[in-house]
Amino acid sequence: MNSNFVYDIPTKVYFGENHLSHLGEELKKYGKRVLMVYGGGSIKKIGLYDKVIEELKNSGLEVFECSGIEPNPRHTSCNKGAEICKKEEIDVLLAVGGGSVIDATKVISAGAFYDGDCWDIVTRKAPITKCLPIVTILTLSATGSEMDAGGVITNLETNDKIGIGHPLMLPKVSFLDPTNTYSVNVYQTACGCADILSHIMEIYFNMNQDLYMLDTVMEGLMKTVIKYGPIALEEPTNYEARANLMWASSWAINGFIRGGKRQAWSCHPIEHQLSAYYDITHGLGLAILTPRWMEYTLDDTTVSKFYQFGCNVFDLDKSLEPMVVAKKSIELLSDYLFNQLGLKSKLSDLGIDDSKFEIMAKKASYGNVLPGFKPLNQEDIINIYKMCL
Amino acid sequence: MNSNFVYDIPTKVYFGENHLSHLGEELKKYGKRVLMVYGGGSIKKIGLYDKVIEELKNSGLEVFECSGIEPNPRHTSCNKGAEICKKEEIDVLLAVGGGSVIDATKVISAGAFYDGDCWDIVTRKAPITKCLPIVTILTLSATGSEMDAGGVITNLETNDKIGIGHPLMLPKVSFLDPTNTYSVNVYQTACGCADILSHIMEIYFNMNQDLYMLDTVMEGLMKTVIKYGPIALEEPTNYEARANLMWASSWAINGFIRGGKRQAWSCHPIEHQLSAYYDITHGLGLAILTPRWMEYTLDDTTVSKFYQFGCNVFDLDKSLEPMVVAKKSIELLSDYLFNQLGLKSKLSDLGIDDSKFEIMAKKASYGNVLPGFKPLNQEDIINIYKMCL
Repeated sequence: MNSNFVYDIPTKVYFGENHLSHLGEELKKYGKRVLMVYGGGSIKKIGLYDKVIEELKNSGLEVFECSGIEPNPRHTSCNKGAEICKKEEIDVLLAVGGGSVIDATKVISAGAFYDGDCWDIVTRKAPITKCLPIVTILTLSATGSEMDAGGVITNLETNDKIGIGHPLMLPKVSFLDPTNTYSVNVYQTACGCADILSHIMEIYFNMNQDLYMLDTVMEGLMKTVIKYGPIALEEPTNYEARANLMWASSWAINGFIRGGKRQAWSCHPIEHQLSAYYDITHGLGLAILTPRWMEYTLDDTTVSKFYQFGCNVFDLDKSLEPMVVAKKSIELLSDYLFNQLGLKSKLSDLGIDDSKFEIMAKKASYGNVLPGFKPLNQEDIINIYKMCL
Repeated sequence: MNSNFVYDIPTKVYFGENHLSHLGEELKKYGKRVLMVYGGGSIKKIGLYDKVIEELKNSGLEVFECSGIEPNPRHTSCNKGAEICKKEEIDVLLAVGGGSVIDATKVISAGAFYDGDCWDIVTRKAPITKCLPIVTILTLSATGSEMDAGGVITNLETNDKIGIGHPLMLPKVSFLDPTNTYSVNVYQTACGCADILSHIMEIYFNMNQDLYMLDTVMEGLMKTVIKYGPIALEEPTNYEARANLMWASSWAINGFIRGGKRQAWSCHPIEHQLSAYYDITHGLGLAILTPRWMEYTLDDTTVSKFYQFGCNVFDLDKSLEPMVVAKKSIELLSDYLFNQLGLKSKLSDLGIDDSKFEIMAKKASYGNVLPGFKPLNQEDIINIYKMCL
């Protein structure tokens, strides 16, 4: 084993309640003109919008707004935000929302310094050289965008959903107040749990042994999500559940658990095609795909990792046959996703048929083979889609 | 449960082999005049000194040296380093060594801006207002000083060993190459493991429920140390073992696992008196104290935490009586420390008798009661010392 990596996650996090009084001082480090980016207005319903505006005004900041960021955020919304940055000479961006809002804000931060369509940034046509600083207030535990340097943007004109990342896009400061997720509904909470789990599994299911220590952390994070997801569904204002899910969501993807592993992801690119073509919730797509992907990749060469997963995450009996533990662990995961979290288990339940599987598989595999835990060619990906019908 | 905290650990870490070519570029961000701080010369034996000097010269940096930092580093050494900083107008400090060297470097970084004895900084007589930036190259997995903002300094004139910390003392960059610990001998490796474990246990043994997620991380870190300590003793050049111990040592104390817990530590202040009076290795003192402190604090009010420890770290049968699991877990920890790591188990083996227990207990409890997992008065602390004889 060799494990070589650079760890560099300087995001400062205010975790818990009543930290908002520090918002002004943090923003002022970067200037006076703030662009507040948010979504469809749920932050107004929960009273967060008013609190933020009050804090910004009290701090003597000049506030501009860019609202209406969509779930699966569009490049057109990024263009709108980047325009405001240029026109109003914005100093710092404040993203208030979930992963979609923060992802869009990241591309806006680069778009502020680019004269052209933000889609060029996403597609790497325009190199990222400079970004506005970003501060976030998180309202949904899922993508981990509040503590990582990446985002995913959708172009509905071309049915493309593409990830983009740059160290300059890493939020400087994030405010993680679990009570801001109290109003997240059962469905979005469940999808968030599936998303967090998938971020961990994309790293965990890896046959190259990296640091054992990081495997133990991943197992702990998975146990946390499995334990608290159903509690948050049952009691939306349970602080303990919301707090555990929130901090787990950040650490699932901020880079720490990745260590020296350089394996490509599997379920995410396969899912991105689903939400690009059908605009379904990313976490739901992942939930439907993941157990089928597991079944499809489980064989004699991969069984040891599933055995480890079953024993350490689901506490299965270590003395059982590895293949028995492996299969049982996939069953338990399915039970968690579809019964305990109550997510739909089939693409057909979402009105999705096999008509686009071929083009989606082609895009997911970049026209070739999707590397990762187990390399998947287009036929493999089509097979996995079919298992989800 | 409520969990409120600020997470702010911006240290950049180069983990693994062959990162040293980045040393020059990282140092140059802060200036050209570098003070290299190190210990008794072990870095020369392993060839690290030559490699570092070559890299610094190739980068066009001007190098000054402050060597001879002791284990349990003295304030007098800090004074020496601070003098050089002032005289040579040093821009940045490079600590090459273990926790002692890095701790001393932290106080030097503040001493560079103070006209007086560095001991005033340690005793809070002189406020810390400014520090030189610090870069570290770690050669011993133990204190975690490479990724935290604290240090411990000894004054042999007054038999005081005092911890001091300040955000400005946090290393900007740390180079963690596990191969730099290959030559650490069996005894120091074992003491390092005891130190890492103690850092985790001081946080873990806490009756205020904080984030479950952080408990799972702590259990994973403890399992990591328990698994790899004996392997590193047996095979000093086992990369996997050295790497796991190294990264675990940083995460045991960088603040992440602390979350919102604000409990005072127990074994560390009790041990600091031992090494202040007898100059023994800190990790050895902790190893001897910890199981006795556990026995002393185990009762009906604390048993649930020991039960959790036994089940999740030592994989004990969850169906057993909690008190049975608790006692067994302490036995297993003792076996680990004294048999598997081969550390001496008694103070009397180190030539320490009870003659100073009273004054040490008084200092450890700040003349009153040591708060923490279970509050300990002077009599309690004397009892624990006696259990170690």
